[in-house]
Amino acid sequence: MAAIYNRVALIGLGLIASSMAHAMRAEGLAAEIVGYARSAETRATVRELGFCDRVTDTAAEAVAGADLVVLAVPVGAMGALAEEIAPHLAPGAMVTDVGSVKQAVIAAVVPHIPAGVHFIAGHPLAGTEHSGPRSGFATLFRNRWWLLTPAEDADPVALARLRALCEGMGANVDVMDAPHHDLVLAVTSHTPHLIAYTMVGVADDLRRVTDSEVIRYSAAGFRDFTRIAASDPTMWRDVFLTNKEATLDILGRFTEELFALQRAIRLGDGDHLHKYFTRTRAIRRGIIEAGQDTSAPDFGRSGTTAAPGA
Amino acid sequence: MAAIYNRVALIGLGLIASSMAHAMRAEGLAAEIVGYARSAETRATVRELGFCDRVTDTAAEAVAGADLVVLAVPVGAMGALAEEIAPHLAPGAMVTDVGSVKQAVIAAVVPHIPAGVHFIAGHPLAGTEHSGPRSGFATLFRNRWWLLTPAEDADPVALARLRALCEGMGANVDVMDAPHHDLVLAVTSHTPHLIAYTMVGVADDLRRVTDSEVIRYSAAGFRDFTRIAASDPTMWRDVFLTNKEATLDILGRFTEELFALQRAIRLGDGDHLHKYFTRTRAIRRGIIEAGQDTSAPDFGRSGTTAAPGA
Repeated sequence: MAAIYNRVALIGLGLIASSMAHAMRAEGLAAEIVGYARSAETRATVRELGFCDRVTDTAAEAVAGADLVVLAVPVGAMGALAEEIAPHLAPGAMVTDVGSVKQAVIAAVVPHIPAGVHFIAGHPLAGTEHSGPRSGFATLFRNRWWLLTPAEDADPVALARLRALCEGMGANVDVMDAPHHDLVLAVTSHTPHLIAYTMVGVADDLRRVTDSEVIRYSAAGFRDFTRIAASDPTMWRDVFLTNKEATLDILGRFTEELFALQRAIRLGDGDHLHKYFTRTRAIRRGIIEAGQDTSAPDFGRSGTTAAPGA
Repeated sequence: MAAIYNRVALIGLGLIASSMAHAMRAEGLAAEIVGYARSAETRATVRELGFCDRVTDTAAEAVAGADLVVLAVPVGAMGALAEEIAPHLAPGAMVTDVGSVKQAVIAAVVPHIPAGVHFIAGHPLAGTEHSGPRSGFATLFRNRWWLLTPAEDADPVALARLRALCEGMGANVDVMDAPHHDLVLAVTSHTPHLIAYTMVGVADDLRRVTDSEVIRYSAAGFRDFTRIAASDPTMWRDVFLTNKEATLDILGRFTEELFALQRAIRLGDGDHLHKYFTRTRAIRRGIIEAGQDTSAPDFGRSGTTAAPGA
């Protein structure tokens, strides 16, 4: 594929940025990839891994002359970063981000974007429970969604180019407004993460009572929660602090429903429970039909990949 | 391996029983496997699949002459089943079950067990989100735990034989008392399932607002909950109705912790959140070290199995 951008600057070199570098290289989407991370240790690691053409010691150097700048730092760090790089951005450059919250990032970044520079916020719905520059891989975005939340007056040509990059890395692109993004993600990602963190915390307390049995017998359902709850703490702290309203809204609904089920258990109302559990099955089928997960038992974990009946 | 039992009767032919049949056949652990299910459709399916040597039309016929009888029906159906088969059990036979709750099953079954017949309750911590006779496979129990909760006066020779069967199917066996089992499982399995069901229910309500976007963008964390919440509704209804006390106890702790995190979000207390999310990471590491899950990103789902850095 022909390069879509001449020089891409990746600021922050964790799972998402390193996966972007691998994917852009694999597909020839950028003529040059320049990287910067605040931590000297991360910069040294990336120099050793070699997935960037150059690693600079300042964000200013990294963005100089870049026609695409990707802000790939925790959501809470976006505003200060935008302020720092603003004087060094090339005229006509595109700035985007990969944060999990969009309204707060837009509010923090836009005031610093100089005239003549484009900014379109974005969010790839891809990731694993691992973090850091060693965790990236080229196929992370394949068949995953990349949501873009451009302002109403965003330049259509600049948008089309950014979309082509995301699609070039294998993602499907959807465009929506930022408040809608934040609500949908509160349901599909932010609240589930908070709940998983909570359940794992409860189990951690009980672990001291039960002598590691919680870990030992985790295969019964709990281990799926621990995977979600193993994600990067700084990233998730920022998500909850910046998508506060939507998360609290969904949490409120969650608590209401949980109390209704809790009450059904206490009263022995089996019909209520059975009806509820039957309804939730249909959602799972929808997700598999939409190609967003595998139908293999237990996600196709090794050891359970045998075909039914084998 | 030499057969451990001469004739094994499987009562109920869903995921667990069909997997036991496949595993016992693969390892030669039973000279003959007889199956019975209440539903004529299931019996026809199993006759067609052929993983039992015989499928009978009544439970009484199935258990006649069996030296091992496995009760593999929902927890709420165990008592009536035990009453039905009791007059037909062979002297010296072993009866076990595979239910997810132990105190309630023991209370329901033991009164019906005739003198001279052994009963030892059991629970394999293995399963997938699929159910029914077509969902079984021989390796389901491999490297999973099989918990046995014998009464204090259980016959040690009969226990050793049952343990050998479980180990022969690839499981690791642990022996504990029934109340302890029910508490540990409330943490590692029952409460996580209830929470997953609740979150999926909330999302289902919102789906109507967001035009299927909840399904479309589920890869961001939510889909792991839907897998858990796709399990058999009847089985789970019975679990919550029969392990009521322990589940309500753990739910109470969960709600307390959730409210504390919710409050931290509302007040913008980033330190509290960060500290909490850091602590929960360690549990994940423990589970991987204990060999109860894969360290591959995203469970090694296809499409994300590339090695980090690849």
